[in-house]
Amino acid sequence: MDIKSYVLEKAAKAKSAARVVGKMNAEAKNLALLKMADVLETSKDNLIQENKKDLEAGRQAGLSTSILDRLELNEPRIRQMALGLREIAALPDPVGEILKVRQRPNGMSVGRMRVPLGVIGFIFESRPNVTADSAALCLKAGNAVILKGGSEAINSNKAIIALLKEAAESQGFPADAIGFIDTTDRQAVMDLLKLDDYIDVIIPRGGEGLIRAVTENSKIPVLRHYKGVCHVYVDAKANLDMAENICFNAKTQRPGTCNAMESMLVDQSVAAQFLPKILKRFADAGVTVKGCDKTMKLDASVKPVETDDYHKEYLDMVVNCRVVSGIEEAMEHIAEFGSLHTETIVTESYANAMRFLREVDASAVMVNVSTRFNDGFEFGLGAEIGISTTKLHARGPMGLEELTSTKFIVLGQGQIRV
Amino acid sequence: MDIKSYVLEKAAKAKSAARVVGKMNAEAKNLALLKMADVLETSKDNLIQENKKDLEAGRQAGLSTSILDRLELNEPRIRQMALGLREIAALPDPVGEILKVRQRPNGMSVGRMRVPLGVIGFIFESRPNVTADSAALCLKAGNAVILKGGSEAINSNKAIIALLKEAAESQGFPADAIGFIDTTDRQAVMDLLKLDDYIDVIIPRGGEGLIRAVTENSKIPVLRHYKGVCHVYVDAKANLDMAENICFNAKTQRPGTCNAMESMLVDQSVAAQFLPKILKRFADAGVTVKGCDKTMKLDASVKPVETDDYHKEYLDMVVNCRVVSGIEEAMEHIAEFGSLHTETIVTESYANAMRFLREVDASAVMVNVSTRFNDGFEFGLGAEIGISTTKLHARGPMGLEELTSTKFIVLGQGQIRV
Repeated sequence: MDIKSYVLEKAAKAKSAARVVGKMNAEAKNLALLKMADVLETSKDNLIQENKKDLEAGRQAGLSTSILDRLELNEPRIRQMALGLREIAALPDPVGEILKVRQRPNGMSVGRMRVPLGVIGFIFESRPNVTADSAALCLKAGNAVILKGGSEAINSNKAIIALLKEAAESQGFPADAIGFIDTTDRQAVMDLLKLDDYIDVIIPRGGEGLIRAVTENSKIPVLRHYKGVCHVYVDAKANLDMAENICFNAKTQRPGTCNAMESMLVDQSVAAQFLPKILKRFADAGVTVKGCDKTMKLDASVKPVETDDYHKEYLDMVVNCRVVSGIEEAMEHIAEFGSLHTETIVTESYANAMRFLREVDASAVMVNVSTRFNDGFEFGLGAEIGISTTKLHARGPMGLEELTSTKFIVLGQGQIRV
Repeated sequence: MDIKSYVLEKAAKAKSAARVVGKMNAEAKNLALLKMADVLETSKDNLIQENKKDLEAGRQAGLSTSILDRLELNEPRIRQMALGLREIAALPDPVGEILKVRQRPNGMSVGRMRVPLGVIGFIFESRPNVTADSAALCLKAGNAVILKGGSEAINSNKAIIALLKEAAESQGFPADAIGFIDTTDRQAVMDLLKLDDYIDVIIPRGGEGLIRAVTENSKIPVLRHYKGVCHVYVDAKANLDMAENICFNAKTQRPGTCNAMESMLVDQSVAAQFLPKILKRFADAGVTVKGCDKTMKLDASVKPVETDDYHKEYLDMVVNCRVVSGIEEAMEHIAEFGSLHTETIVTESYANAMRFLREVDASAVMVNVSTRFNDGFEFGLGAEIGISTTKLHARGPMGLEELTSTKFIVLGQGQIRV
């Protein structure tokens, strides 16, 4: 079969499976998720063996140590995957929730009912632990899912998905509720992205290159973020000890994540007091600082920042530092260079906090906390399938609810329109 | 200037205007809407005169009487437009609403704030009264809007929009908050649909041909419905008098609307009792009935229905009638032929009502009411800019809330991640 027909068949099967999954009750879905967790753990030796093939191929292809690390499956990571599935099983089922029911003047009640989206296409790179989590979230929200992983993890993904499918089927799920595009041919993704009659939404997760390629070629709506260029603005009225802790945490606690701080903006009135301390702390921790002229005047070790640097998602122990004239210039900087992901102000000023909250455009706008909190678990959504910076449908971390839609429901007693 | 540059300039200007509109408070927006209402009324003679040019051109181009009727502006219709604007001014401002704020275990509060979408592209046909309503809804929700009307209404739209812009500017709105693509060149729409860096969402309103062309050519997300093929299913346990009133109302109260009934599905156990009465009532009202074999056996005047008819949106005094074996076959019929718009069951059975509500996929699923209620006013949303059958972002009638997005907000006291 050619790639195009292969992908079409997967999509068509997923669409019929979705109608069945959408009607399954929470207990059946949860039992399947728990079963998946069990089989991942009992099959750990097989998973590790299949993963070794990918690691070996990756080493031969010259993948970086950090990519190989992300790719690796070991016993603790498999236990973590299983734990993730059990946590999703414990979350409340979003499907069938009835919202905002109001009685209209004519006596009929109008409300909304939460329903599955249908078929979700999930396209991802590298980390095989994402596979189980994402499939579980999609199924729990009543959807069918089609997974397409990166070629570097093909053997690991194949093994994980075979186990997930087996577990799901044993608990009454249709065989095609979890679809897997079992090829490393890049054409498969391009073909998949055209199937808007079968797939309701595409969620890509990976590097900016993947996300842009998916977005540009998709006829199906895409929920995504391209990158996380996140800022902390230290206001004139900031508690400077708090600001120091937040900036340090936002940059160093896990610099390789999309919600890490990439640029620090500091009000000029506190720069001389604030910067020497935080810059020393950064230096001690091995963070390279690129700064504006005013920053460089305060610290000779600071390298000059280029305008282009302000657009960069370093994902590394590097940070830009810019002294600004106040909240106005800080917000202008964010509007120009931010990626609509996560923006924080540190301030004790009520007026500035409210203004920043209202005017800054991003998936999450924060006062006096680290940018690192923009995350489904931290926000209390349970697990997340990714973070969206799109404005339609879902913005910020996407959990179970974001994998659903609603429909209006009307409960009447014979009303007609006059 | 060529079309492409012209459209690009409009879009870029709308994007900067959107940042200003998004910050305007409710009072300023409402005053502008009230001013718009006033100037439409005081300029009615000018509007009617400009509209006459379109009517004359339409007559010469051989437009149908019904299209010419929709196109016509007269004094009562202008008063109605002004009333519509005043009603939108009276609705609560959705922007800045804060939702679902919960305190997390670490003491920070996480919630969502409602924010404007940004720039809305509204592409519509025929009825010039839609122009004012849509512009007002977009502005009130804090957005800039770019309007592109049909060529048959170009003079009317130009005149209306000039007045709306003048009124908006006089109340402090930026000049580009309301953009108008002042050309009948079809290329303008194609160019507009590519500008995903400037326009956040496209809402088309008109015939199926327009909607499909927009959807197929857009790089920007589109909220829309193609057509309304709506059903009423008369269940075995229906109150047959109620069913008769609902079916008659759903078909005849305004047959040219998308939420009118196009096919009636009747449980076989009540067909012999129910059909003769409703078919007579249809016949008396001048409704042509196309029916399945069983329907034809009960009434010799019924014409045979073809499978293809079940896909049709008649928008006319024509209805399909099919006798089904029960709720299962009714739901299968709806899944196959429905357009995901509006579906009603008439039943006294609690189990069948709940099953229909849960399992039928449509923007509105109803029990014991006429399909004609699927409408923003009737549902209590205030005005609507259209009805969406898409699953992402907005489903069903789209009012002010559907013209907004949300962002997460976090209120902390210095929390960092550990």
